[in-house]
This record gives sequence, structure tokens and C-alpha cells, in this order.
Amino acid sequence: MDRNAAGVVRIAMQGPGDVSGLVTLIESGALDPCTIVAILGKTEGNGGVNDFTREYATAALSAALAPRLNMPARQVEARIAFVMSGGTEGVLSPHITVFTRAPIPPRRASQAFGKHLSIGIAHSRAFLPEEIGRSTQILETAASVATAMADAGIAHAEDVHFVQVKCPLLTSERIKDASGRDKTTVTKSAYSSMGYSRGASALGVALALREIDGPVSDGDVLTNWDLYSNVASVSAGIELMNNVVIVMGNSASSASEFTINHSVMRDAIDMEGALRAFTAAGPAAEYCSSPIDRERLVNAFAKAGASPNGAIRGFRHTMLEDSDMNATRHARAAVGGLLAGLCGTGAIYVSGGAEHQGPAGGGPIAVIARA
Amino acid sequence: MDRNAAGVVRIAMQGPGDVSGLVTLIESGALDPCTIVAILGKTEGNGGVNDFTREYATAALSAALAPRLNMPARQVEARIAFVMSGGTEGVLSPHITVFTRAPIPPRRASQAFGKHLSIGIAHSRAFLPEEIGRSTQILETAASVATAMADAGIAHAEDVHFVQVKCPLLTSERIKDASGRDKTTVTKSAYSSMGYSRGASALGVALALREIDGPVSDGDVLTNWDLYSNVASVSAGIELMNNVVIVMGNSASSASEFTINHSVMRDAIDMEGALRAFTAAGPAAEYCSSPIDRERLVNAFAKAGASPNGAIRGFRHTMLEDSDMNATRHARAAVGGLLAGLCGTGAIYVSGGAEHQGPAGGGPIAVIARA
Amino acid sequence: MDRNAAGVVRIAMQGPGDVSGLVTLIESGALDPCTIVAILGKTEGNGGVNDFTREYATAALSAALAPRLNMPARQVEARIAFVMSGGTEGVLSPHITVFTRAPIPPRRASQAFGKHLSIGIAHSRAFLPEEIGRSTQILETAASVATAMADAGIAHAEDVHFVQVKCPLLTSERIKDASGRDKTTVTKSAYSSMGYSRGASALGVALALREIDGPVSDGDVLTNWDLYSNVASVSAGIELMNNVVIVMGNSASSASEFTINHSVMRDAIDMEGALRAFTAAGPAAEYCSSPIDRERLVNAFAKAGASPNGAIRGFRHTMLEDSDMNATRHARAAVGGLLAGLCGTGAIYVSGGAEHQGPAGGGPIAVIARA
Amino acid sequence: MDRNAAGVVRIAMQGPGDVSGLVTLIESGALDPCTIVAILGKTEGNGGVNDFTREYATAALSAALAPRLNMPARQVEARIAFVMSGGTEGVLSPHITVFTRAPIPPRRASQAFGKHLSIGIAHSRAFLPEEIGRSTQILETAASVATAMADAGIAHAEDVHFVQVKCPLLTSERIKDASGRDKTTVTKSAYSSMGYSRGASALGVALALREIDGPVSDGDVLTNWDLYSNVASVSAGIELMNNVVIVMGNSASSASEFTINHSVMRDAIDMEGALRAFTAAGPAAEYCSSPIDRERLVNAFAKAGASPNGAIRGFRHTMLEDSDMNATRHARAAVGGLLAGLCGTGAIYVSGGAEHQGPAGGGPIAVIARA
Repeated sequence: MDRNAAGVVRIAMQGPGDVSGLVTLIESGALDPCTIVAILGKTEGNGGVNDFTREYATAALSAALAPRLNMPARQVEARIAFVMSGGTEGVLSPHITVFTRAPIPPRRASQAFGKHLSIGIAHSRAFLPEEIGRSTQILETAASVATAMADAGIAHAEDVHFVQVKCPLLTSERIKDASGRDKTTVTKSAYSSMGYSRGASALGVALALREIDGPVSDGDVLTNWDLYSNVASVSAGIELMNNVVIVMGNSASSASEFTINHSVMRDAIDMEGALRAFTAAGPAAEYCSSPIDRERLVNAFAKAGASPNGAIRGFRHTMLEDSDMNATRHARAAVGGLLAGLCGTGAIYVSGGAEHQGPAGGGPIAVIARA
Repeated sequence: MDRNAAGVVRIAMQGPGDVSGLVTLIESGALDPCTIVAILGKTEGNGGVNDFTREYATAALSAALAPRLNMPARQVEARIAFVMSGGTEGVLSPHITVFTRAPIPPRRASQAFGKHLSIGIAHSRAFLPEEIGRSTQILETAASVATAMADAGIAHAEDVHFVQVKCPLLTSERIKDASGRDKTTVTKSAYSSMGYSRGASALGVALALREIDGPVSDGDVLTNWDLYSNVASVSAGIELMNNVVIVMGNSASSASEFTINHSVMRDAIDMEGALRAFTAAGPAAEYCSSPIDRERLVNAFAKAGASPNGAIRGFRHTMLEDSDMNATRHARAAVGGLLAGLCGTGAIYVSGGAEHQGPAGGGPIAVIARA
Repeated sequence: MDRNAAGVVRIAMQGPGDVSGLVTLIESGALDPCTIVAILGKTEGNGGVNDFTREYATAALSAALAPRLNMPARQVEARIAFVMSGGTEGVLSPHITVFTRAPIPPRRASQAFGKHLSIGIAHSRAFLPEEIGRSTQILETAASVATAMADAGIAHAEDVHFVQVKCPLLTSERIKDASGRDKTTVTKSAYSSMGYSRGASALGVALALREIDGPVSDGDVLTNWDLYSNVASVSAGIELMNNVVIVMGNSASSASEFTINHSVMRDAIDMEGALRAFTAAGPAAEYCSSPIDRERLVNAFAKAGASPNGAIRGFRHTMLEDSDMNATRHARAAVGGLLAGLCGTGAIYVSGGAEHQGPAGGGPIAVIARA
Repeated sequence: MDRNAAGVVRIAMQGPGDVSGLVTLIESGALDPCTIVAILGKTEGNGGVNDFTREYATAALSAALAPRLNMPARQVEARIAFVMSGGTEGVLSPHITVFTRAPIPPRRASQAFGKHLSIGIAHSRAFLPEEIGRSTQILETAASVATAMADAGIAHAEDVHFVQVKCPLLTSERIKDASGRDKTTVTKSAYSSMGYSRGASALGVALALREIDGPVSDGDVLTNWDLYSNVASVSAGIELMNNVVIVMGNSASSASEFTINHSVMRDAIDMEGALRAFTAAGPAAEYCSSPIDRERLVNAFAKAGASPNGAIRGFRHTMLEDSDMNATRHARAAVGGLLAGLCGTGAIYVSGGAEHQGPAGGGPIAVIARA
């Protein structure tokens, strides 16, 4: 098998429709558009049901890449896995992270020892509205994780450090479609459906990586918080009806100049937990006495959520009772603040809605660094 | 002069009208209501113009203290300095910090060496709507700071570590009142007036402590960001028309069992800056290698704001362009997340709107710890 | 049986804590506080879970009435039925409507022919968290309606024109309490629980007035939209755990100078439906050619909701997909705009969350006018 | 001079990126894309600074029209005047209104008597950030109105019934650009700048149509509410730096099958004022006794705003003090509710921010109907 090199580049965005940074990199020759396999973005919407910055950014990026890949924009969306996570609350800064995969260039042969960053992708079939948030979505996601691991050349679950999933949500239209066929959806609220879809997808990741023992039932979703994945990160979007799965890990078959590591925050203020992701990944070591090596840091990827029991270490939080500002916005802002303090930048990927992604109220954090 | 001991106790709240924690402490004999000089609270409103949780909490606390102080509720509000800062976004937790002052009890004599926490209070005269956000408010605040320092027994500016100011804002009614007298207010927007009032008050603190050289003109407010105080913390509220000033510092005349220290965050992600406040105050030292001594920490007090130039360390933030969620909510959530990570709790005082309180986009942070 | 006279007066509020209008009326002798049986208010919060303007207004009114009724504030809350509906979006104006009941004064004997406004009140027992939104709440509400009708001296369902219910909601604390006893609540979302509680209460009203045939099951709540009451108006609040029921209708035993009438809006833009409530009630007749007699109008009481199928007369609305602004705020603003246009004032009672209160997407409207 | 026929068609949208309705009309032959001169849309964002649904809709429509007009998307945006007004609060429904202009088709010759709908367009030069909201913008807009009237073949101001203007706003970037050149912008707040830009543009319309006497100074903008236009409707958007002006009126040179009329609402609840626009335009007459002829109605176009003095007919509104929901959202929802009640549909154009567009707190309303 030929060795591949996964590449990663972070690009700032001036707005959800801004593709100038990507275009500049391509036109300068620094980035070959044919090697792009996935683009993870943070866009500046509310991250909720009516956050159109996600689909707008995807549309703008596809339109910009179409002539450069010599295919229509629709086909670009099928070829590249786009995951746009809405919400750059607080100090977070809108940006995309572009992941590439290419045969190993000879000049990098010396870097080829040990395990390095590798990336794989898979798509599930489209779901029916009534399947969202339930066991069908769980099982289909688990199957897609296995496919994506194979695609990445990663054989062992412990080498998987981050699994990004993009999943669908319910709208009035979709709920109507289901009830028209005498089917009941898991919830009648569009906003709530985002949580169910994220939760079921995360349980699918946990199942695939044997973080939990099956079987998992419909009733576990958003209820049994003891079941979770330490590496799943799921975003819901209105623009699709299937799950897209991106597996990131380290592989001996990769000649990438990057490595990835992860840890878990046990709650939203678990700075010590977050620090562990920086230690082994490369960019870090001891903090303060020997601060994080921010030069080598490429990006951090984390999930944030409001602890469902309404408290953090015994002190009540108000995220779940705020009818003006959704809990996901609260959580992204807070965890984003903590991680930006560690990373020295707000251009990091912090995504809301961490149901079954890490322990309840906590979440996974992965760090990619120059090896 | 008799020596005093400043006391500090933090009490969780289950809602803006919840006084049960305070009442329990009083009824158990742990807290003498006659010694209360100030109550700083974080309440769970939006922190904006129509945040009535501030006045509701003040009304509830006053009503609860009235029979115990043997005076009508109105008089309680005049006797005790209530500062309710609205907004517990993200991981922040609603609570009050009760400050007391009492003659030194003999059994604490051994703690009396060195400088310890001391607190002083002053009230400015009521402002006319057209004076808010302008030099009259600046100068009156400066005078009140001097009065409060004397009240605290603090002679030198360098011993002042936190100056909390409560200031008024403009409403449609107040703007109308001014224009009815042919006067122009500094802004026609109620929300914007909060920033002007906070900014002018902070410049008054800076002037009093000689952090800046006078004179300061109307045009400097919200414009000349080079002028700021490193210890001012200002909250605007709809419920008053004058400024209430609370000076906190260390004084040799205090026999308190607490000390206070401060530092400045140069921007909203300045974790290193924040850590300095923990070092000297008592509760801290080196972080990680020797983590913050959270047992000794009583509370941290910080201001948070969106950097007015729209970026943090070169990366664009979106706080100022978000028409759904005010910048102050964003900033409190983010800085609250970072500081809660350091402190190990969300029950800390992080207040939004840091105009002229610390450098633009940053803010002061003070820490009170058991000595 | 002695005849009673129901009185109604509308009082503007300058803020949720403003009781000056009520106090002025009492001190002038125009209003005898001993005759007050209910106060319906519109306060300026978000109408959601964390809308503390409701309990703040109730606390302020109780505190103001306590010395005038010679009882502690707690007892005032038990004696008078306070219903504060949060949310004065758009043109709506914060105000209270004070309902009184007193033996007939001799000078009004000439008005005593025909049926006039009468009001009755009842309280259900406190609910357990797991009973909220389910059949227990439905049946207990129905029983309370019967009790309140008797209290009002109204024998026939067709003489009932408005039934205002105040009901509880779930919080993180309450959900935890139930799960601690191995009970499942109807939803895990505080915001969603408001809808369930309102829906079950409205079905209880419909059952009591034989607008629907029983039995009604748990599964009908928020699902079977064919079941609804044409006169129920329900508001959820965090400050209580039981239902308070206020029945308004016309009774021959009343010597009131007011009458009440109602109709139903079949959707949120049903102006023709709304107009019918004005016709018979007294204040109106033909609109335009002979406009509504606004001089005789005392107040209008309406419920507003977003149609659950996501459309109005075939055109999509976006209320249910808006993650920045809850559907109840949208609906109150829109229906408030329409009714304020008819009434010529924004000081009307339009309350959100019309589940099972009128047809789906529509809602009841009642009008009180001078006879 | 050849006679033209202005066409108007309203098309529902399923989302800001949905162009299917327009494409279907074109592909069916019902709409010739070459005749399109302007597209006015209501999109479902917040209508504020960060409402990207406006530029997203424009991008999607341009991309869809580009191959059909045989030109790049950029050129489409220059050829057709796109005005996307964000915000479909309450019962309002997302849609576009497509305006066409074509030489008169012979079969319509019989309709050619009297004045019929005509439309004209003009673009101002791009503004510098410091010119926005000031007299330069006023004067340039006035000049553009004259150009657009000539384009429409309308000679007299009284035949102009609606002038839609699209204008720029300030962002952090733009404010920085100005201050980098030692220029001061009219405000430092992005949100506030929208009001200034709309206000100055509206005064430009008023000046051009001699509704006010010049000269108008910088100080009049957002201050002198006696100066206003009865036909101006202005929307601010982040996506442009110049003003686009669309004049609509009736012209003898038009052979359109439509006519337009207008009136003014003196405040946000002025139903009688709104009704006058329906009377002469065609679709209406007496309401109720002879209800509005909804079959002939094509669309209504109105501006809505919160009265700056904080009250409507003596009753306080809370739109300007709400820190969770901007006043423009409140006002659109309320006025949208009233007008949807009259029109029998929520698919109408109600735009927020009515500074100097109609009297303070009120706004213009125009109605297009089949002749």
C-alpha cells in the first residue's frame, strides 16, 4: 500500500461567504484542490435550526472549488466532506480547517517513522425523519465509522482520536412528512431534534470503537448519560438527511507532518482535562512553567455542552433555563473561552451540543500539531 | 483608631428572589446583619437594559434584611451598597458576595500583622440624564473614590485592588426628560448609554488613583482607549441615578482574615495575565506544577469586554456584529469560562462592559483569598 | 342570594416592580383593596422559563397590598389570584387588570337587568413534577373550573367566556426530583414543559365545559389538535406548582356595569374572527363603516400561538425554526399587532402559548366592555 | 416613446437559498429572465448586522439566473436590483417579489388607458464609511431618485408611491478603515449605523420628492423626526457600499396590468391609515362591510418602526429597552401581524427600521393590485 500524507491548514474567514483565503492558497500553489478530502468550519450563525451560515458557507466553498475541480458545485459537495459548525460565540473566530490527503512526497520520507495523522471518510444512507435520534441512526453511524477507519488505514480503535459526524435534524416539513405516513418522530421540536440526532450519532461512534457495549436502545438516547464516546464530535445541520463521518487518527501508513491526540473534559470547566490533550499531541507539555508550544499547534477541536443536571461541581448554571439564548450558545462561549486561553487564539473549533460526546456536561477535545 | 475586620462570604442563589442562603446564615448566627456594608451579586438576567433581576434581587434582599435591621426596606437600600451585575452566561453561577465590617474581635489578634482586606463606600449625588457618560460623572466618581478610600482606611493608591462602581443608565423616559429641558444626552439608545455611563465612571476611578493624568474630556469617553483603570469594575443599572463606589484594598488598619490582589488581562484570552492575580493574593502560586490553592480562594472579580477593534490577537471575533446576543453576554460567557477553569467553580463575579476598565478588550481581575 | 358586582380596571405599569398606579387608586378611594379577587398582568419579560418579571411583579404587588389588607405578603398571594403573563412584544404595553367583587351598591340597581360580568376562582392541589402535562393535571383542572363556575354564580357553560389558568412548569430541579423518585417527566426541557402544562390545563377547561368529550389521554396532549377549548387561556410560571383557575362570564346574579363576550381566531391572522368578539360584547359593531366603540372597551384578552404545521393559509412561517427568538414571542407580537390595531391601544392582554386553546395556530379572544 | 409594461410576481421561498420557485416560472415560460429589473425579498434572518440570509439569497438568485442570462453571477447582481430585507417575524412569510419590465405586448393594448405601474432604477456611487448617515448620503440618494424617476417615465412626484432604497452599514472593519484615515464615522456601533444609513437615505428621498424643504443637515438625521418621506422604504445590508434606488409609481407610459397606491400609518397600530392604501389602489374599498378584494392584491409593502419616544398613544412600549430582541424585530412582527390580518396572508413585505420613513413610529405602506 502506498503511503499517504494528511495535510491540515487553518484559514480565517471574513464572513460565511468568504472564500478568498482558500482561493489565495490554491492560486499560490500552496494547496492542491484535488487533494482536499474534508473541510471543517466554524461559521458565525446561532448554531441552531435557522443557522443558514452553514449551508451558505458550504455553497460558497463548493462554488469556488467547482471550476478548480472541473465539476459542478453539487458534485463538489459529494466529493468533499463539508462540516460547518455554527456558532462563534465569545472569543471564537470564524475559520475553516482544510484536510488534504495525497501520496507521500519523496522529500518528506524522513518524517515517515512512527504514527502520523491520517483521515478517512464515509457517508451513511439517507435517513427517514422517524429514524433520526433512534437506533437506526445509531447502527448506521457505527457502520460508517468502520468504513471511515478502513479508509484512513487505521486498524485499532485506540489510534482514533477524533470522529467528526455531520447529521440531519427535523423541520416542520420533515415531521409532517413522517406523520403523513403515520410515523412518529422522536420529538416535535426542530431545536430538540438536533440534540437527539447528535446523541444517536455519538452513540454510534461509541459502539463502533467499543467504548460502550451494545446493544443500545432508543430509550438510551438523551437519557442514559453513562453511555458516551470520548472522541465523537457531532454537528446537526438542516442541509442533509444522512450522516457524514470523518475519522481522524494516527496511522503508521501516514507520512503526514502532523499528529493528533485527544483527552476528555469531565465538565465544562475542566482545564486539567483539556491540558492532557496538549501534552502528548506534540504542542504541549507542562503549562505555565513550560507553556503550551503554540507555534506547533494547528488547531484544537472540542465539544461543549450544558450539564443536563443543571449544575457544575455543585453550583447551579442557568444555561438550560435561558429562553433568550440557547444552551449550546452558552456552552460554546464558555468552553471556547477556556480553550482559547490555553491555545492563545480564538480560531479553534468548539462545537455545541455534546450529547453522549464525553461525559454529561463535558466533552472530547482533540489537538492537531506539527510533529 | 480602632482596628476593623472585613469579612467576605459567598452565597449561592436559586433565583433572583432567593434570599434563603443569607437568611440561614443570619439565623444561625454566622453572620451579623448589622455588619453588612456591601453585597455584590451576579444575577441571571441578560445584563442589559431590561434586566430586572438586578432590582428584583435588591428588593428581595432588602425586604429580607429590613426586619432584621429594624428599618424599612428603602432604608436598607440606602445603608448597604447593593451592586447586582446581571448575566450568568455559560458556566457562571448566580450568587452574592456579602462584605461585612466589624471592630476586631480579640481572638483574631494574631492575624493582625501586615495589610489585610479593607472596604470603604461612598455615594455620589444623583446625576441628571444629560450628565451621564460625560465629565460631570467622571469628576463626581473620582471624588467618591477618594471618600471611599478614606472610609476604608487606605491611604495609598497602590493598596487599592478593586473599585466596584454601580452607575445609572438612560431610558426613553430619562432621555425625554432631558430633551424636555433642551438638553442632549450622550446617546439616544438605552443600551448604548450603559457603555457611556460605565466608561465615564471608570475614567473617574482612573483619575482618582492617578492611573491617568487629567483632565479627561467628554470626547475621551468610549474613544480614547489608552485611558483606563486597572482596578475599576463598573455595572450599570436602571434602578439608580447616582454612582455607588466600593473601594477594596489591603490596609494595615484591617484585622481581616482575608487579603486581596489584582492583575489585568490584556485581552479576553489572557490566561497568563489572569494567573498573576492569583499569585500574590494568597490562593495561588504556579499553576499546574503547583495548581491554584482553590481551598483558600473566596471569590474572583473580573470585568470582560469585546475588543472594540473587532479582533483578538489578529483573529476576528463576532461579538460586536451579533444582533441576537449583545457583546456583553458574549464576553461574560467567554471570560467566565476561562476564569472558572482556573478557579474550579463558576460561582465567580464576571461582569460585562469593560469600557476603560483595563485595556480595550481586556479587563481587571481581583482575587480575595483567606490569608 | 345577595347580588354581586364585578369590577374591572386596567392600570399601566412603568416596570415589573411598579405598583404606583394601583396604590394611587387605592389611596384615592377609587379602589377598595378588600374587594380584589384577581389581578391579570402583562409583564415585560421574555415569557419563557427565566422570565422573572412575573414573580417580581407578583411580589411587588403583594408587598404593596399587604399593609392595606393587614396581612403578610404571603397571605396576599393566597387570597388574590395573580396571573402574570410575560411578554409585551411589539406594540403591547405592560399593565395589570384588577378584578374586584363586591356586594351590589344600591345606586347601581338600575343596571341589574340581564346578565353581567361575574368572576369566580379556584385552586387545584399542588402537582408533582411527573403529573404536569398529563391526565392528572387535565382532570384536576376540570374540577377546578367547576368550582370556579360555582364561585362565580354561573350555571351554564355557554355563559363562560374566558377561563384564565395559571399553571406550573418543569425546571432542572423539579425534573431531578422526579427522577430521584424513579418517575419520568413528560419532557426533559424546561421550555417544552411550559407547552405541555398549558396544553393539559386547556384540555381540562374543555372537558369541564363539555367542549370536548372525554376521556382525554396523556397522548392527546400536544398531539391531537382537534381537541381544544374556545375560552381557555393558560400561562405557565415558575413560581407555583398548582393550577389557579379564574372563570369569567356573564351571570344574572351579577350587578356589574360590565359584560364579557368571546370569539375564536381560527389562525393568527383571522381578523374577521377577532372582530366577532367585539360585536356582541358591547364595545363594537361593524368595523370601519361603524368602527369599534373604543370608549366602552375595558380590555381584550387573547391567546396567540404559532401554528404547529409551520404554515398559515398555505404560506410558511418561521416561528418554530427560529433559534434566537421563541415562537411564543413571535406569536404574541403578531397577534398583539393585529388586536392593537382593532382596539386602538397596545395595553391589551395577549398571551403566548395557545396549545389546545382555540384551534391549532389560532386562539380565543374575549372582550370586556362597559355595558 | 415605446410603452412598457411592468410585471410583478410574488414567489414563496422555502429558505434563503431556495430558488426553485423562480426557476420553475422561468422554465415554464411564464417569466422571461431578461425582463427582470428588480427583486425585493423578505428573508428569514434577524434583519440585523449579522443577517447573512440577505446576501445568501442574493448569491443564490444570481447563481440561478447567471446561466439563464448568459453572464457571470457578479454581472447579474449589477444588472438586477436585489433588495433583500431580513426578518420574517411572527406571521410574515419568506418570499420574493420579482419586478419585470418589457415592451408592451399587443394583446394587452386595451389595458393601456390611464396610469399604470411603472418602475425605475438607479445606483449611487459607493460611499466612504464616514459618509454613511450624513449629508453626502442624503444628497446622493436624492440625485438617484431623480434618475430612477426618469428611468420609470414618471414626471411628477405625486405619481411616485414607493421608493425602495438599499443602503450600506458600518462594520468594525469599515469603522477602522475610516479612523485609519483620521475620519470619524457617525457611530461606532454596527447595529446603530443601520439606522443612520436608513435615515439619511429616507431624507434623500423626501428631498427629491419635495416632501421636505432643504437643506437638511447631518444633525437632522435621527433627531428631527418632523422630516420624513411618505413613500421611502430603506433597508440596510452589509453586502454593499452604495445606495440602490427603486422608484415605483403609476405612469401613463406604462401598459402594465397593475397599479400601485400608498398611504401612511401614523403609528404602528394605525389600522385606519393602512386601510387607505387599499382603497384607491384597486384591491380594496370599505373593509368589513365590503372586505378587501384579496384576489386582486399582489403584495403590500410597508415599513415598521418603534416610536422613538417609547410610547404609542400614551401607552409605553418596551421595544427600545429590550436587550434580547432588537426593536426592528418587534416592530416588523407587530405591523406584520396587523397588515397580514388585513391582507389575509403573511407573504407581504414588511421591513423594519423606519427612520424618517413616515412619521416617527409609523411608516409608509404601498399596495400593488391587479388593475
